[in-house]
Amino acid sequence: MERVFRHFQEDLDTLKERLLAMGGLAEERVREAVHGVKDRDAEAIEAVLTGDEPINDLHMEIDDRCFKLLALHQPMAADLRVIVAAVKINTDLERVGDLAVNIAEAAIRYVGHAPVKKLIDIPKMGEIAQSMLRDALDAYVRRDTALAHRVLNQDDELDGLKTQVFRELLTYMLQDPSTVEPALDLILISRHLERIGDHATNIAEDVIFMVSALDVRHQAPGHMDA
Amino acid sequence: MERVFRHFQEDLDTLKERLLAMGGLAEERVREAVHGVKDRDAEAIEAVLTGDEPINDLHMEIDDRCFKLLALHQPMAADLRVIVAAVKINTDLERVGDLAVNIAEAAIRYVGHAPVKKLIDIPKMGEIAQSMLRDALDAYVRRDTALAHRVLNQDDELDGLKTQVFRELLTYMLQDPSTVEPALDLILISRHLERIGDHATNIAEDVIFMVSALDVRHQAPGHMDA
Repeated sequence: MERVFRHFQEDLDTLKERLLAMGGLAEERVREAVHGVKDRDAEAIEAVLTGDEPINDLHMEIDDRCFKLLALHQPMAADLRVIVAAVKINTDLERVGDLAVNIAEAAIRYVGHAPVKKLIDIPKMGEIAQSMLRDALDAYVRRDTALAHRVLNQDDELDGLKTQVFRELLTYMLQDPSTVEPALDLILISRHLERIGDHATNIAEDVIFMVSALDVRHQAPGHMDA
Repeated sequence: MERVFRHFQEDLDTLKERLLAMGGLAEERVREAVHGVKDRDAEAIEAVLTGDEPINDLHMEIDDRCFKLLALHQPMAADLRVIVAAVKINTDLERVGDLAVNIAEAAIRYVGHAPVKKLIDIPKMGEIAQSMLRDALDAYVRRDTALAHRVLNQDDELDGLKTQVFRELLTYMLQDPSTVEPALDLILISRHLERIGDHATNIAEDVIFMVSALDVRHQAPGHMDA
């Protein structure tokens, strides 16, 4: 029994490690896609468009690890929450990878036109989205609800920038028809970045739920840790 | 033991029932949002904008049901897959509810402008997205992989319409600046509908994985059902 338990803890640690790797990969692809837009780097954009196999493989691997942990060890409440959260976070990270591809799809059209303007808010949105992802995953691994709450706050900033980008680009489109196509793609890119923030928010919410439920359990009368 | 097992089956049936109710609610909100755009019905749009509480409540209830089923019954492989699939499907359906709100947000701006054109493809996209959702959930409850595969095929049709809508509206925007704002909102709406199709696709893929894994297990030597 002791040995099974040790295996379980090892497997759980490996799961968290792989989830962090997946997060790193997702973040890297967002960075590359935004760099491609900002610096009009078609090679970087192409790399994002064609390079989603590793993240898809990791997605399946992590799903499989979660399932095996649930099936073989039949974990109790606390660990169960960690694993169910991992299933959800894994899904969110895979979508973030898809969104990096969506950004690249708009970016490759965008760089085919003259630049609309110097890009400031979109790279800023990219940085916020990446930092939200990083913080949300750190919060998961460290069970840090304060950090998870900070992720939720950052989302408002991202939404504000999205609205600002939308208004500004709309003005360009209305004044100069030659900006319609590239400005439209920038609007789509800003929406994709906002959605990446939404996924980081989902992860942060899962962390808060995961940890608070544990806290409640720990405060219940007759618990085992006292 | 027999009694616990019967409770488990009842709880599992209730879970499926609630998931179907959630799917019905999500589908209904998509229908209402698309009707709001198509028939310029501001009241319908407002109803979608303000009415996401029931679906959010159901989302939490279903999550809780899944968690309790996992924690109390420690189900084995086959049932475990059904429950893990339910966790994922529940997340997808909640996002569909959010997307209905996103459609309504663009729709309320849209109806503030003169119509760009008679809408044909967007209502068609709405119908396809709704039928994909319905089929994907039926496939889950009936473990029907053939139906799940039909959902995957419908997604191509939806993607094709999205591209067509994009090209057509872009032409309007380039020719007549007064169409820029409403056409932009229609493009956003078509993207939201495409994403609803993506969620239905996710559900269908979960069903295929859930059922195929069972088939493999059933074909393995030494299984218990022979």
